[in-house]
Amino acid sequence: MKTIFINATLIPMVHTDEVIESGALGIEEDQIIYTGKKPSPEELAKYDEVVDVKGKIILPGFINTHGHAAMTLLRGYGDNLPLQEWLEDKVWPMEARFTDEHVAAGTALAIVEMIRSGTTCFLDMYDHMDAVAQEVEKSGIRAVLSRGVIGFDSEEVQRAKLQDAVTFARTWNNAADKRITTMLAPHSAYTCSPKLITQFIDRAAEFSIPLHTHLSETAREVEQNVQMYGERPVKHLESLSFFDFPCIVAHAVHLTDEEIQILANHQVKIAHNPRSNLKLGSGIAPIMQMMKAGIRPGLATDGASSNNRLNMLDEIQLVALIHKGYLQESEAISAYQALQMGTVYGAESVFLEKKIGTLEIGKQADFITIDTSRPNMQPTHNHISNVVFAATSEDISDVYVDGKALLKERKCVVMDEEKIIYEANEAIQQLL
Amino acid sequence: MKTIFINATLIPMVHTDEVIESGALGIEEDQIIYTGKKPSPEELAKYDEVVDVKGKIILPGFINTHGHAAMTLLRGYGDNLPLQEWLEDKVWPMEARFTDEHVAAGTALAIVEMIRSGTTCFLDMYDHMDAVAQEVEKSGIRAVLSRGVIGFDSEEVQRAKLQDAVTFARTWNNAADKRITTMLAPHSAYTCSPKLITQFIDRAAEFSIPLHTHLSETAREVEQNVQMYGERPVKHLESLSFFDFPCIVAHAVHLTDEEIQILANHQVKIAHNPRSNLKLGSGIAPIMQMMKAGIRPGLATDGASSNNRLNMLDEIQLVALIHKGYLQESEAISAYQALQMGTVYGAESVFLEKKIGTLEIGKQADFITIDTSRPNMQPTHNHISNVVFAATSEDISDVYVDGKALLKERKCVVMDEEKIIYEANEAIQQLL
Repeated sequence: MKTIFINATLIPMVHTDEVIESGALGIEEDQIIYTGKKPSPEELAKYDEVVDVKGKIILPGFINTHGHAAMTLLRGYGDNLPLQEWLEDKVWPMEARFTDEHVAAGTALAIVEMIRSGTTCFLDMYDHMDAVAQEVEKSGIRAVLSRGVIGFDSEEVQRAKLQDAVTFARTWNNAADKRITTMLAPHSAYTCSPKLITQFIDRAAEFSIPLHTHLSETAREVEQNVQMYGERPVKHLESLSFFDFPCIVAHAVHLTDEEIQILANHQVKIAHNPRSNLKLGSGIAPIMQMMKAGIRPGLATDGASSNNRLNMLDEIQLVALIHKGYLQESEAISAYQALQMGTVYGAESVFLEKKIGTLEIGKQADFITIDTSRPNMQPTHNHISNVVFAATSEDISDVYVDGKALLKERKCVVMDEEKIIYEANEAIQQLL
Repeated sequence: MKTIFINATLIPMVHTDEVIESGALGIEEDQIIYTGKKPSPEELAKYDEVVDVKGKIILPGFINTHGHAAMTLLRGYGDNLPLQEWLEDKVWPMEARFTDEHVAAGTALAIVEMIRSGTTCFLDMYDHMDAVAQEVEKSGIRAVLSRGVIGFDSEEVQRAKLQDAVTFARTWNNAADKRITTMLAPHSAYTCSPKLITQFIDRAAEFSIPLHTHLSETAREVEQNVQMYGERPVKHLESLSFFDFPCIVAHAVHLTDEEIQILANHQVKIAHNPRSNLKLGSGIAPIMQMMKAGIRPGLATDGASSNNRLNMLDEIQLVALIHKGYLQESEAISAYQALQMGTVYGAESVFLEKKIGTLEIGKQADFITIDTSRPNMQPTHNHISNVVFAATSEDISDVYVDGKALLKERKCVVMDEEKIIYEANEAIQQLL
């Protein structure tokens, strides 16, 4: 089955600022087979289906490089409390009571929200991951999944958790028509002992699975690390050889210049969570310095309880705004760079750059369309600027993963939105 | 005609964090006559119309306290250029060619965008203001209008501009069924001589019309003021007696503690433009310090060419996020405070607090409804948190001004959206 989308404004994310007017995107099954100007009638005749998307922009789907999907169930829960109280009195006790069913319900709600805001691939670090993987499989979305391990337990429990993480990663890698890949995820240096982290690294090496962890999210965490191990988290993880393996770290807010250089030297991938870092008062990550050092950061929402949404378009917009204001440099991070972070850099950050992140022949057909007909998208002096600064998720019209529509004209076509919302509410009501 | 909206979740913005479940809002013509729990069947029977808004939140409409509506025509125009080049080579030459027709077309586009994102009242400072006022009159929205004067001209031209500003302000004050009020607006201390500013102040005093100006938006502007007048802008305007009259200043990004105290002592109103200040690299205004000094700032979008949208919900969300992250204080500015800035503080800032800004008996029926049925608004642990952190403008369902629907289920019911978009594009095409 070959389909071509014609009369589109194409933003392939291959060459800086490239916008193809009267463009077309051809796909065959799950892959891209054509991008460029609208082809001749003879070429068009070779397609089984021709879809006119006049007035729409086509660009690669957004890639959410860090999160905890099922935390949608806790959106706004205990939201007015100080950070530590919120975690210790509200979030953690509630999460401890989550079963597979709760996590499935929360994840499904998250996936619907992400699809509706243009995300075609998300990274998840959580517990009850079989339930998460099953929801991914059903939904049609792409995901990079890991069982996050907090090591505040006996050695025996730690071993069991590690084994659970490895079994999950090996079982689900390349599952769901290869839409699922996996990672190994010790939660962080402040919640896992050096010994446990080393065990994770060994398994990552043994099975060639990338690592994922939280790093230097808050000033307090950095101080704690110094107190506990005599070193800041970056040097601590470096000395454990964490960075010698393919890995992605989330947050990286509190970094020295030397630490940025260490991360760059080791080609460590970064998941920048601008909105979560603001909401939790963690700070503003030194993204400009990272980029100067050659790092190409991905963007992420983090969990809904610290955001409180899972909307990658908002992260793209925020990253294009916040560093300009914070540094008082109107040219810090261009609209195009922000879009790169949300697409191609995101793909690199989750080690899927050969499959997704741009509109190129041979890549998987993961793409979205943006409707330019609403007042906020007019006039169209600059499509890239309009997507980054003016679009809202309401303008995201269609979402495709592996060539299959998940959202059409803002209607979910695979998932049953109403049922999912009902079940998520049922799930959380049981626990309140 | 009496109408009551029942089964709503009411956020009246009168008492901190107050949320009325199973609430009702009763209106008679253009005024609010009831707010509270759903009344008895006998009480309901006294209404001509009962509207069930189950699943919707009702709150006061948003008040946009500073902008230049017609600049929608320049959305994204020259967006990748450095600030000064963008202004001098792109924006100003284009604006100089605007006629009444261009300004009418751009303003209509702005009004549609604002209505669709929940704004019921906006402040505008621009040129060709009769055209702006006529669009406000037709649209049904409320507005506070001023002819902005830049004084880089001969004394004769300056006098003519001042006269134009005064004539406009006197002609349109309380026009359009009192939906329009007016201000007198010398553009800024760096574009108007002390003499011209003094003339504005004199007219403001003579006709009891509030003043509006830009103040300390950029570090460069503050430096310039010191070079030109030996004082920073706040002391400069204070010495001209500007603050002795009712006035609202836009931006106020670069302020010392002493300057904040001066503004607070004079009860100067503030229009905080978080998104524009970020996008132009102007900086982050010291809102927490202002609030500690007793200032209750309003929020604003500024013009679409420096934002690039006119979406007050985004400003509310951003103000709740950015100061937390910048100050590394997760409790800086609560969700409720952000909502106050977008509603009741906004009303105070444009001197309309007796008429709008809260849902209270006797006030004008300017309100919006927010649909909670989409995935991003679920579950509903905390309605205020959900509105501020999770809602998108897609969730804004209905918008009323003076009891009259301007938006119903996201359809504009007074303005012809399609025609307005067409005309705005025609207008700007003529000038490219």
